[in-house]
Amino acid sequence: MNSLELVALKDFPLIEPNDNLAEIIFKCIKNNNILVEDYDVIVIAQKVISKSENRYVDLDTVKVSKEAQDLALKLNKDKELVQLIMNESKKILSTEKNVIIVEHLLGFININAGIDQSNIPQDKNLALLLPEDPSKSAKELQIKLSEMLDKNISIIVSDSMTRPYRSGVINFALASHNIQSLLDLKGEKDLYGNKLKGTEVAVADELASAAGLLMGQSDEKKPVILIKGFNKSTYQINNSFDLIVNENDDLYR
Amino acid sequence: MNSLELVALKDFPLIEPNDNLAEIIFKCIKNNNILVEDYDVIVIAQKVISKSENRYVDLDTVKVSKEAQDLALKLNKDKELVQLIMNESKKILSTEKNVIIVEHLLGFININAGIDQSNIPQDKNLALLLPEDPSKSAKELQIKLSEMLDKNISIIVSDSMTRPYRSGVINFALASHNIQSLLDLKGEKDLYGNKLKGTEVAVADELASAAGLLMGQSDEKKPVILIKGFNKSTYQINNSFDLIVNENDDLYR
Repeated sequence: MNSLELVALKDFPLIEPNDNLAEIIFKCIKNNNILVEDYDVIVIAQKVISKSENRYVDLDTVKVSKEAQDLALKLNKDKELVQLIMNESKKILSTEKNVIIVEHLLGFININAGIDQSNIPQDKNLALLLPEDPSKSAKELQIKLSEMLDKNISIIVSDSMTRPYRSGVINFALASHNIQSLLDLKGEKDLYGNKLKGTEVAVADELASAAGLLMGQSDEKKPVILIKGFNKSTYQINNSFDLIVNENDDLYR
Repeated sequence: MNSLELVALKDFPLIEPNDNLAEIIFKCIKNNNILVEDYDVIVIAQKVISKSENRYVDLDTVKVSKEAQDLALKLNKDKELVQLIMNESKKILSTEKNVIIVEHLLGFININAGIDQSNIPQDKNLALLLPEDPSKSAKELQIKLSEMLDKNISIIVSDSMTRPYRSGVINFALASHNIQSLLDLKGEKDLYGNKLKGTEVAVADELASAAGLLMGQSDEKKPVILIKGFNKSTYQINNSFDLIVNENDDLYR
């Protein structure tokens, strides 16, 4: 594997609830005159999936618990938003620095449970949740798009997230299908012929980060990125998404 | 910015202490028949910089303190290696999970102070430290290579690191020059014309991650990746490396 090419789909439309996302992506690929080949990876921002799955919540309709009300008061945040963050989380890990860090229902850890109010319509008091089951969404899109394109493609669903120890957000993989999310190099040889002891590489995260460079965070309208040249032929694909580490196995916790 | 191309330099030689790395990279670019243009980004694995700067330490020569000896015994690790990790660190943050998590002298947090024994010669009992001042190395390489190539290029020095909450390693930026490491989007407009409140994007980390896909961790011999198409013309370059967050500003600590 010696080169990679990343292409953003231009003129991608704004997505509305119940839109057929696979069909829209397929049409946009055709309109962009992009040739899709076997093993191409399509990275899709979770936000367009959430919108097509109508994961909007009108904050004015959220029923607020006493606990959420107290926390909202303490953090000087909107109480309905705090309730929504709690609803989307297994548990709250910290509220010390005036942000709510949670373990999301999907297992990963982040701020505000991935609930975001940017890049959504502002006419109502809306918030947008993450897809309910991004792995299922990834699988469905992979099956539909592979069929429409008549190619064996891979899907990564991505989201931009903050992280400990580093400034700024980067794009991460939230789910994937038909691609190995974590590559185990144990037993492979290094430059000097010595066997590697135990390096695992989070390739789905690296692919998501690469795609993030073209997606942008503001008004770019480029939520779908095609990555060409990522050769996976040398390893078996296991479709479990292996990038979320539980507390016991997390060396930093 | 609608597409990106990443190219690994093929047949990159093994680097020895005191090699002229800029010249070797320049020659390799020529041998690969790669056209370098203004604004291209060259991502270089820290390991080849460390080797050219002779950051090898013979573990047999390391003087071991009582503290390092005790910690090595507790963790069942080589006492000279533990001493070296301590020498390279401001402080030890945790040894709870049988790994040594430190704040490195360079400010970032990782396991074993970035000291690695893979991909180095095994004839002596050697370990390889990170470059002493990666920002200085990045600046020197940027100046030399821009002059040799007669192009205005950017440099990122990268390293693969573990991270909290996620499995596997990904490639991060350790230093950069002539590129904005952290991009502040505050005030830019989102899809619906609303101003973004405060998103900062760690573009140098995303570029490093993208390059990591081609570098590999085993015997790939591809420590230098050229990224074409990353358009920085819309923002000012500030050469400070802004990706390391101090404890007070780290929302997760």
